[in-house]
Amino acid sequence: MFAWREEGWRVDLNADLGEGFGRWEVGDDLRLLGVVTSANVACGFHAGDPVIMRRTCEAAAARGVSVGAHVGYRDLAGFGRRFVDVEPAVLTAEVLYQLGGLDACARAAGTRIAYVKPHGALYNALGTHEAQADAVVDAVRAFDPSLPVLGLPGAVWLKRAEVAGLPVRYEAFADRAYTAMGTLVDRRRPGAVLHSAVEIAERCVAIAVDGHVRSIDGHLVRLRVHSICVHGDTPGAVGIARAVREALTGAGVGVAAMGTDNARVGA
Amino acid sequence: MFAWREEGWRVDLNADLGEGFGRWEVGDDLRLLGVVTSANVACGFHAGDPVIMRRTCEAAAARGVSVGAHVGYRDLAGFGRRFVDVEPAVLTAEVLYQLGGLDACARAAGTRIAYVKPHGALYNALGTHEAQADAVVDAVRAFDPSLPVLGLPGAVWLKRAEVAGLPVRYEAFADRAYTAMGTLVDRRRPGAVLHSAVEIAERCVAIAVDGHVRSIDGHLVRLRVHSICVHGDTPGAVGIARAVREALTGAGVGVAAMGTDNARVGA
Amino acid sequence: MFAWREEGWRVDLNADLGEGFGRWEVGDDLRLLGVVTSANVACGFHAGDPVIMRRTCEAAAARGVSVGAHVGYRDLAGFGRRFVDVEPAVLTAEVLYQLGGLDACARAAGTRIAYVKPHGALYNALGTHEAQADAVVDAVRAFDPSLPVLGLPGAVWLKRAEVAGLPVRYEAFADRAYTAMGTLVDRRRPGAVLHSAVEIAERCVAIAVDGHVRSIDGHLVRLRVHSICVHGDTPGAVGIARAVREALTGAGVGVAAMGTDNARVGA
Amino acid sequence: MFAWREEGWRVDLNADLGEGFGRWEVGDDLRLLGVVTSANVACGFHAGDPVIMRRTCEAAAARGVSVGAHVGYRDLAGFGRRFVDVEPAVLTAEVLYQLGGLDACARAAGTRIAYVKPHGALYNALGTHEAQADAVVDAVRAFDPSLPVLGLPGAVWLKRAEVAGLPVRYEAFADRAYTAMGTLVDRRRPGAVLHSAVEIAERCVAIAVDGHVRSIDGHLVRLRVHSICVHGDTPGAVGIARAVREALTGAGVGVAAMGTDNARVGA
Repeated sequence: MFAWREEGWRVDLNADLGEGFGRWEVGDDLRLLGVVTSANVACGFHAGDPVIMRRTCEAAAARGVSVGAHVGYRDLAGFGRRFVDVEPAVLTAEVLYQLGGLDACARAAGTRIAYVKPHGALYNALGTHEAQADAVVDAVRAFDPSLPVLGLPGAVWLKRAEVAGLPVRYEAFADRAYTAMGTLVDRRRPGAVLHSAVEIAERCVAIAVDGHVRSIDGHLVRLRVHSICVHGDTPGAVGIARAVREALTGAGVGVAAMGTDNARVGA
Repeated sequence: MFAWREEGWRVDLNADLGEGFGRWEVGDDLRLLGVVTSANVACGFHAGDPVIMRRTCEAAAARGVSVGAHVGYRDLAGFGRRFVDVEPAVLTAEVLYQLGGLDACARAAGTRIAYVKPHGALYNALGTHEAQADAVVDAVRAFDPSLPVLGLPGAVWLKRAEVAGLPVRYEAFADRAYTAMGTLVDRRRPGAVLHSAVEIAERCVAIAVDGHVRSIDGHLVRLRVHSICVHGDTPGAVGIARAVREALTGAGVGVAAMGTDNARVGA
Repeated sequence: MFAWREEGWRVDLNADLGEGFGRWEVGDDLRLLGVVTSANVACGFHAGDPVIMRRTCEAAAARGVSVGAHVGYRDLAGFGRRFVDVEPAVLTAEVLYQLGGLDACARAAGTRIAYVKPHGALYNALGTHEAQADAVVDAVRAFDPSLPVLGLPGAVWLKRAEVAGLPVRYEAFADRAYTAMGTLVDRRRPGAVLHSAVEIAERCVAIAVDGHVRSIDGHLVRLRVHSICVHGDTPGAVGIARAVREALTGAGVGVAAMGTDNARVGA
Repeated sequence: MFAWREEGWRVDLNADLGEGFGRWEVGDDLRLLGVVTSANVACGFHAGDPVIMRRTCEAAAARGVSVGAHVGYRDLAGFGRRFVDVEPAVLTAEVLYQLGGLDACARAAGTRIAYVKPHGALYNALGTHEAQADAVVDAVRAFDPSLPVLGLPGAVWLKRAEVAGLPVRYEAFADRAYTAMGTLVDRRRPGAVLHSAVEIAERCVAIAVDGHVRSIDGHLVRLRVHSICVHGDTPGAVGIARAVREALTGAGVGVAAMGTDNARVGA
């Protein structure tokens, strides 16, 4: 059992980037890259095209931001936001292909893939869908068994990843309400998404410093994570991300990309 | 200036494989893999999907067949057979992505990309289109500057590749008629495509042993290549490929994947 | 309550056609068009492209075969065979678009869409998924409220279609085993798919003449349908389809496209 | 020979709308719909998806704005902005399919396709590429031989359309410089695109009232058109469009969708 917090504790800030496709752009990537320490880069299946992927990797590398593989379902029309009942063997191959495609872009930009984080409906499915969970774990292992995977504490795929020997990293969501069980409140419920920068920043400090979050019904819930996910695709999102970072720094929490030194959180 | 043929001269036989997509299959890949020494594996943009790519790499690796990256335009509907006036920076990124995607599949199968060969309309365009030629050369260099490129003698992109320091390999087409200039006869002209297995096999022996081919109008044309391309997507294609291989072997020409020892042909 | 069989009773034979895409072809469409009376034509989302759609409509029209809209999920890579949790409003629009696209091809070929039949995973989902069922019914109504819909007896979407006033047509599967409840035996169970042409043809006669089928566990199950679905995408499929047609004719059952005169089956 | 301007002369204002795809949106469609009289609606091949198409048709219908079919190459990744050397028969079928798909959306919204205007690289290609020009004309004729086509004066495809009996409509570009020959100045040349709302509005009045435009090198060039194309995808675009409309109205030029009464311009 690891001690959670130690001298020099640091937390990672991750956000989704490179989510355009062709002529279509999303978010304010360059500004967001000035705030976060890890960039979840779309790999071309739910968003992202090779030009955007290269450009995002280059911009991240230039700012010392880590590149994560934001793998998703093959579903550009749905932005990877709808569950696809894809066969595990197909999913494994598709994730492997996405990892290879992003890896080539990252290396050409002088960086490398630092972690894998599923996107959208795949992210949600991997919380519970065992066959898809195994499929994604298989893909990461086949690609590089030393590559960390990032997700929600308690997600089935992370349990499988741990058994498979992959380094596992956990994240919290800056602007999402939690249940007393430590799970995310369903987006469609009132209060599920927080909008106040001040409130969001305070929660992030509580998560990083105290290792807990107050649930939507008032309980203190243990939440120990390596990274906090902020959003960049809505108006004001970059402002909120910046408020989070400043609050963390103000509270004495270092903000840095995930690495070996802050890998002890999982518990 | 290299001597063309030496002791232990060997020629490579390459063919397009893995050209299905999803439910759709093409050709008789497994039988063809028993004949050729190099497999041009579609990378998902004009054909091929990650499952097919993995499976083809595994089947090739199991038979000791080299895996080549058969990169193409992003055009599944057109099978990469129509020119797309894509911007060079986009083409570079798209080829880089395809190389990465196939590389991941190849490594997971215990092999690696051994060379790059463009497909279809891209292959043709790179013969003369300088901007696209540079774009593809840039992609290969960004991916791996030691990776050989395979194409038609005289193609603009191979000249650029040579200047850029990429290893260059040349190929002949087993079943295509040549002009007295050493270029391919336009497919739409009568006699442009040969159909007799005997005739095709004889030509391949002449190419491999003598380093020349008889043109459609009867001239002897110098043609010194590292590899001969055979087809696998038409009825009887595997039979023709096998006839070529047997004729070469019968003539004392070794058949082996391209490597360092037969890299001296280009002249 | 309708009388099921009357003087001059006729049954329709339907099959999936036009299931290629670009360079990729499936099945033996022309031969199959000589056997069936209704062609389920893929509309470009799970298979089919505009060229194939036009050609299939023209070939169907030339043989007096009805054209049905074989609408599917937007999933070329999966051939529409995997459930996609698409939002109902998106599904409605996508089906509407597919209907319009096929309609243009059909009219250009001198025919028209005669019915709508969902494909693959959508077909299965509509048996039980109420929101998607309503979505497809909405699309058909928006397109043409007089257009018949074809599916499995008991399917939720057909109940909704009936309430919505769409003409409803039922089908049986020639080569699938039935449970005592009248539902299809899961494909993955032994005996779920029949392979003997003789056996399949006999069942089709029993369905058409007697209005019942013997279930996999030996019970007689009532099964009154307007159409029987035969397959065309496997080796020997056309032979089986022809055997079915000959057996029906031999038993005195007319084989004809669905129309007003055999619309009374549903009960 | 028609008189160009008559009592009650009116000009149409057209703009590209519905150019998003899935999660990606473009421009400020609703504001633009308050200014223009014709909406060029993307049909799903270079942009637009069925949901966006329906919504755009509904919004246009609600404001009395005409719906035009903005057909393009099958190239979502390139937004239809790059030439594709597609075979004529394929292009014909693809345009036919797009027309059908949009038609279904338009009818469901209580309106209909009022005209056809090609998009992007296809628009440019049809100015000179005879085989593709014929292909598009064939598609429109097959779909509805009474459907007007809209394009640049002098374009090859409009000459073919006229011969084929299709109603032909001409347009000018509000913000593009013209040569003394009446053709558009290449976008890459300095001064090719105008940015001043005042200047653009003045030119549009000159075009509508006087039937001429001053070329980039100072000549008066005859330019008689039914419609003026304004843009909506850049910042300030809607403001410019509004300035054009107000200037036209201020000059006594009615602004109305193309119809039978202003069909006399072509000369």
